Amino acid sequence: KVTHVDWDVDVAEKGGYPDFMMKEIHEQPRVIRDTLAGRLVDGHLAIDELDLSAEELNLIDRVYVIACGTSYHAGLIAKNLVEGWARIPCEVEVASEFRYRNPIITPSTLVVAVSQSGETADTLAAIRDARVKGAKVFGITNVVGSPVARESDGVIYTKANKEIAVASTKSFLGQVVSLTLLALLLAQSNSKLTTNQVRLLFGELADTAEQVEDILSDTAAIDEAALACKDAASALFIGRGMGAAVSREGALKLKEISYLHAEAYPAGEMKHGPIALLDEGFPVIAIATQSPVYDKLVSNLQESKARGAMVVAVATEGDEDIRQHADHVIYIPKVRDALSAITASVPLQLFARAIAVARGCDVDQPRNLAKSVTVE
Amino acid sequence: KVTHVDWDVDVAEKGGYPDFMMKEIHEQPRVIRDTLAGRLVDGHLAIDELDLSAEELNLIDRVYVIACGTSYHAGLIAKNLVEGWARIPCEVEVASEFRYRNPIITPSTLVVAVSQSGETADTLAAIRDARVKGAKVFGITNVVGSPVARESDGVIYTKANKEIAVASTKSFLGQVVSLTLLALLLAQSNSKLTTNQVRLLFGELADTAEQVEDILSDTAAIDEAALACKDAASALFIGRGMGAAVSREGALKLKEISYLHAEAYPAGEMKHGPIALLDEGFPVIAIATQSPVYDKLVSNLQESKARGAMVVAVATEGDEDIRQHADHVIYIPKVRDALSAITASVPLQLFARAIAVARGCDVDQPRNLAKSVTVE
Repeated sequence: KVTHVDWDVDVAEKGGYPDFMMKEIHEQPRVIRDTLAGRLVDGHLAIDELDLSAEELNLIDRVYVIACGTSYHAGLIAKNLVEGWARIPCEVEVASEFRYRNPIITPSTLVVAVSQSGETADTLAAIRDARVKGAKVFGITNVVGSPVARESDGVIYTKANKEIAVASTKSFLGQVVSLTLLALLLAQSNSKLTTNQVRLLFGELADTAEQVEDILSDTAAIDEAALACKDAASALFIGRGMGAAVSREGALKLKEISYLHAEAYPAGEMKHGPIALLDEGFPVIAIATQSPVYDKLVSNLQESKARGAMVVAVATEGDEDIRQHADHVIYIPKVRDALSAITASVPLQLFARAIAVARGCDVDQPRNLAKSVTVE
Repeated sequence: KVTHVDWDVDVAEKGGYPDFMMKEIHEQPRVIRDTLAGRLVDGHLAIDELDLSAEELNLIDRVYVIACGTSYHAGLIAKNLVEGWARIPCEVEVASEFRYRNPIITPSTLVVAVSQSGETADTLAAIRDARVKGAKVFGITNVVGSPVARESDGVIYTKANKEIAVASTKSFLGQVVSLTLLALLLAQSNSKLTTNQVRLLFGELADTAEQVEDILSDTAAIDEAALACKDAASALFIGRGMGAAVSREGALKLKEISYLHAEAYPAGEMKHGPIALLDEGFPVIAIATQSPVYDKLVSNLQESKARGAMVVAVATEGDEDIRQHADHVIYIPKVRDALSAITASVPLQLFARAIAVARGCDVDQPRNLAKSVTVE
């Protein structure tokens, strides 16, 4: 007797998830673990490929992170770490701007190229120009042997494995983790952090894998907030410090897959213009985790509530006060501010996906977009 | 016999214009002339207040422009000039971010504070912190004797006179002109520009007054484009290089006074996300003036048109080809790319105002906003 098996390749590849994006969001704890595996050896960071001596690393007096789209947002997060830990001025610029404006580059400049595919046209052109000017180049990419990897003096691979959904999630998290390692490497090289401090921070970085699992285990609050916002014409994402960088990626994800026009703003800028947009029910999504700027952020939420906005806050577990200032609260585990981008980004991915699904969009294949942009 | 005169103070103060914003937009040629009057003496720049020696200016190796809202956008424009002419690395940061993140500042850092009122709380706090760290501070403000002026080592006044409309126009243009002078001063001080080059550039800068008059003399194309876009739910402003900075201010102006949610993006980033928003009739407003990146920008317009977007292009007089790639073209006089922000910003002010009027908004007193933000 012949048994007919209804076996759908697509469903099988999605591993039981409704779409690739959801599958890839859930892979993120593994991506964190794999990206960190074997990276700390006797208190020193092990980088995939490193043709730079400790002396060359120590001479770096300026860092440029060059990237496009989601990778650019990973760069904005890294700026906080490179400046905060290594105390080296760090500028983050979109590749299509950087390459056409004759930026100031010297042999002591480190150019960090971030590209999932490792073949983004503008990013590649930017690092080629930077090399001609004598800069050192460091690549953060998901593809072994890709042009960005081949043309860099140092490489960290993001270990996300193949990403199928067009809107990047697990690659982004891999980039943030990799850039965190790079910031630790720079800070250790110029002695701004001791070996013990690096060990401690590395341990906390590794702990984020479990914290992300925790976030993924209960998404009811995220889904509820998404339902409340799904019919909006547009939205604002706000944050301060690390939260300002995270809010950029949250807004992009929502634009990409739900076509809901979301824009990110540093929360302190609200009063200088964007607050004019607010009226009854206008969604304001805020990164309101514990940090030195928490109180300032809360005052921005109060201003938003006073104008009738629908406030969704991503906050730290145990923060009950925030409920007074938000219509919906999404709690995430407590983590050091410097590492908070890793945990705070995850609920925003789920939020964007839930809205896209509710709006009937194809979350894996959004209109007008391609997975990697290999033309200019 | 007593004659009753219907004399309306309000109308009189508006000088025949329908609102203060329109009056102030039309004052801009005068603001350019007044801000430049007496500034070039024997080929050297004369600054209102300057407690910095030529030697101190020459030692500056890093510039931070700190500001909020519209002033921040003037800073983004200045970055291109400071790096392009003086070849000094220049970072522009919103004051509410800068002050809370322990930025890297040394005695050879110049912090430039830009504030119309000269009393913006976050900006003021930022320069106080910078001074404690030993930085030199330069102020660009519209108010003589304001806190920003008093606490700076050098000051350029924007000569806009009192600005009444909440959304800044003439102050913004005064800031851009003043920051252009500062960039020339830095470039002359470190000998990156010769006295002859400074004379030439100063002359072209002065010519922008007449070019702005030219733009103001015929606004039919602007009004027509505004009518075509007025009912949109949201919009994108795009540009590259100087145009990327100008588009930021164009989008903010529209948000502030018409409540139409407009966002600016560097045009090269479109394919990395924002292009997903585009469908039939979605407004894309582009700064498409003659520049080294003109061809690249045109290819972004082609991609936008292919998705059905309604393209409005601000282009250089004589550029007939652009009509193939845009539904509405707003021509402005030909000007050097470095000075193009001055001319290209003006039609965007008129565009925002026309949309606000068409949507029935109070252009002088937009909801939720105050003229100056003197609290945090």
